[in-house]
Amino acid sequence: MTLIPPRTLKGFRDLMPDQALRRERMVDVVSAVFRAHGYRPIETPALEYAEILKGKGGEESDKQLYEFDDAGKRRVALRFDLTVPLARFVAEHEGKLAFPFRRYHVGPVWRGERPQKGRYREFLQCDADLVGATGDAADTEMLVVMAAAYRALDVGAVTIRFNDRRILAGLLERLDASGLAVPVLRALDKLDKRGTEAVAREMREAGLPAESTERLLGLAEMGTDDADTLARLEGAVTGSRVGEEGLAALGRVRDLAIASGVDPGLLRVDPRIARGLDYYTGIVFEAHFADTPGFGSVGGGGRYDDLAGLYTKSRLPGVGGSIGIDRLLAAVEEREGGTARQSVSDAMVVHPGPERLEAAFAFAAGLRARGLSAEVFPEPKKHGAQMRYADRLGIRFVFTPDADGAFHAKDLIAGETFDVSTPEEAAGEITTRRDAPVDRA
Amino acid sequence: MTLIPPRTLKGFRDLMPDQALRRERMVDVVSAVFRAHGYRPIETPALEYAEILKGKGGEESDKQLYEFDDAGKRRVALRFDLTVPLARFVAEHEGKLAFPFRRYHVGPVWRGERPQKGRYREFLQCDADLVGATGDAADTEMLVVMAAAYRALDVGAVTIRFNDRRILAGLLERLDASGLAVPVLRALDKLDKRGTEAVAREMREAGLPAESTERLLGLAEMGTDDADTLARLEGAVTGSRVGEEGLAALGRVRDLAIASGVDPGLLRVDPRIARGLDYYTGIVFEAHFADTPGFGSVGGGGRYDDLAGLYTKSRLPGVGGSIGIDRLLAAVEEREGGTARQSVSDAMVVHPGPERLEAAFAFAAGLRARGLSAEVFPEPKKHGAQMRYADRLGIRFVFTPDADGAFHAKDLIAGETFDVSTPEEAAGEITTRRDAPVDRA
Repeated sequence: MTLIPPRTLKGFRDLMPDQALRRERMVDVVSAVFRAHGYRPIETPALEYAEILKGKGGEESDKQLYEFDDAGKRRVALRFDLTVPLARFVAEHEGKLAFPFRRYHVGPVWRGERPQKGRYREFLQCDADLVGATGDAADTEMLVVMAAAYRALDVGAVTIRFNDRRILAGLLERLDASGLAVPVLRALDKLDKRGTEAVAREMREAGLPAESTERLLGLAEMGTDDADTLARLEGAVTGSRVGEEGLAALGRVRDLAIASGVDPGLLRVDPRIARGLDYYTGIVFEAHFADTPGFGSVGGGGRYDDLAGLYTKSRLPGVGGSIGIDRLLAAVEEREGGTARQSVSDAMVVHPGPERLEAAFAFAAGLRARGLSAEVFPEPKKHGAQMRYADRLGIRFVFTPDADGAFHAKDLIAGETFDVSTPEEAAGEITTRRDAPVDRA
Repeated sequence: MTLIPPRTLKGFRDLMPDQALRRERMVDVVSAVFRAHGYRPIETPALEYAEILKGKGGEESDKQLYEFDDAGKRRVALRFDLTVPLARFVAEHEGKLAFPFRRYHVGPVWRGERPQKGRYREFLQCDADLVGATGDAADTEMLVVMAAAYRALDVGAVTIRFNDRRILAGLLERLDASGLAVPVLRALDKLDKRGTEAVAREMREAGLPAESTERLLGLAEMGTDDADTLARLEGAVTGSRVGEEGLAALGRVRDLAIASGVDPGLLRVDPRIARGLDYYTGIVFEAHFADTPGFGSVGGGGRYDDLAGLYTKSRLPGVGGSIGIDRLLAAVEEREGGTARQSVSDAMVVHPGPERLEAAFAFAAGLRARGLSAEVFPEPKKHGAQMRYADRLGIRFVFTPDADGAFHAKDLIAGETFDVSTPEEAAGEITTRRDAPVDRA
């Protein structure tokens, strides 16, 4: 028989156990932070009517859509984000939901992008949104949630750079260029990736005079600190009502976030943050590693005026944020070389042959009853082969049942042996030894 | 502008926050049980090459496949289970994996079935497999894992009915009907759903003589208890080597599972369990509610000889089990009327207007720092509207900042009020009051 080559599609990937475990732990941490702030999960289908998804993310995302006819001749597509499904969900279930509505959603999305290093056609989206509320409290809450999530993830310091779209609108108003907001802000959003030169060219091509382009890019520089940045922006927006409003709100949100315990050193007013998406109308933010900002954004979000206007006449403003779990996973793997073993078993019990197997199983069950994870090697292989398996998986403690009902234990990290007679005793030894400093053998 | 009707595809559904939260908790519980037994997660893409997935689950599952050409003209399909992707995964990464390989995988799968009550075209699969090991220890481990998962889920007592395909092979051998194993076992598997009459007809149509059909169906009845069932089976398989082997293994596995602490009352030898899938070769099992077995299977699995033979020359035997999370969710909702509110916030802090907002935010942060979940109402609405929101979401404790820096608290379940001045004091009150019995106001 001809074998079918086992392979994944271009741009798709498997997660190996170490990676999957790490990502699962990240998702658990972020979900717990969301819940601690009153957010509840929802689930929506991976497949939607194509008409629900098309024309929502712009031309580029339509082109990237996985779209097809199902067996019932319905035109369907795989979701490309979790925001459009949220909009459809809120419009469909409006009468059943309590507003303000806080929801989080973690799930895969699909985009047929050209595959590049670190970018996949399927990736995990991890979003929180507060729908049906406007104002400082709602905007600040989203910064507080994001900051708490990055802190809990323990991936290194993450700075949240934030801005308000109204400040950018004010700057453009003062430059008599309000009509150019969409192309100019899309260009500004690329500053980090493309550099000043390319962005300036794009702005001029959009119709912004060279002088205004220079002035805008000058203002968009961050100051020496937030006070400096805010002072410079104040000079630039004075006279534009929308600009003044945005700047005042930004200051209040900053103070409120700090009062809530967000580390002021990890919050940064950054007038360059525009976010490419057209639907943002107020606060916008992006998360970057404090030490390696060149790694790129590891999350972001902002305020929108009208989430679900395509599906309902109700006007539903809100604010949302997205944690870039797959980007963070890539960063951690890059840092640690991707080789760290993520063992789940605290202990392995050696398969002692059929006559002592019941004792081995009962011992493992006893460890689990004490909150430890334990596996019994599932076949009566040679002792050495079983030990090599434990070592390869990074399982630290191995217990071998002997004929007298005792268990010989080996601590594979400390390279020490000891004996125990009950799971209780074993659990105690494991706890003590794990807490002790080790000279690695 | 014409609105797009917000709706999901036929056979698909959203999970509302209460449902999604409950399902997420179930997944967390089951995943923790899997990890406690040494299983580690993997992830595979939702989309695979169609040739990887086709012809693996039989004609029916090919017809149900969501299959299409992607933008690069590749024939692709959405996975219909997690076992075929596991086979492809193991074949592709064989050299990198440590065997025996224990993995779990929780994720959505898609089948274009005719939608029926409680059956959806997208559902969550929740599988554990131990690949690369044969024998009693491996088989028993899977029963132990499944039993631990149902117990931890706390959804009511779940009985695991188990059997060994070799016993069925032995019965057929003794009836001179070994050549009919595939259609006869497929028929037997439908006993619960279709009844004896229909199954007997299907067996006769497959070519099994009427007398043998009657004899087989008689033997497949469960005895008064496991000892009785085993004794009857012993008489029936004696003389068939494969049957005797299967029966002996079944007895050893039963004893070993009980030695590991599985409640003997929740294990039941059931000769009718065949599992429809052709690839099972040894132990097979199914989980049912002890009180409402008519609800149908809420999980199952078994042993296979050759997981990945279509993709690799390596022979990889294993044993796997699947927890029917969506079926369990449906059962719990049916039982509780689906209306139980699953609040995530322990406390809500009332929005006191702009001048005291910082105090409100700092207070909520203080509660979170003490392990509680807390939200601040995000807009300065009337006090009554804020209280109604808290009540609707099932948030028990509401704190209102006053002008003096104190917080007026209301326990919405006990209908009592009290005052606190710090988050620490509030956290203490919440803990004490939650532990106390309540006369519901």
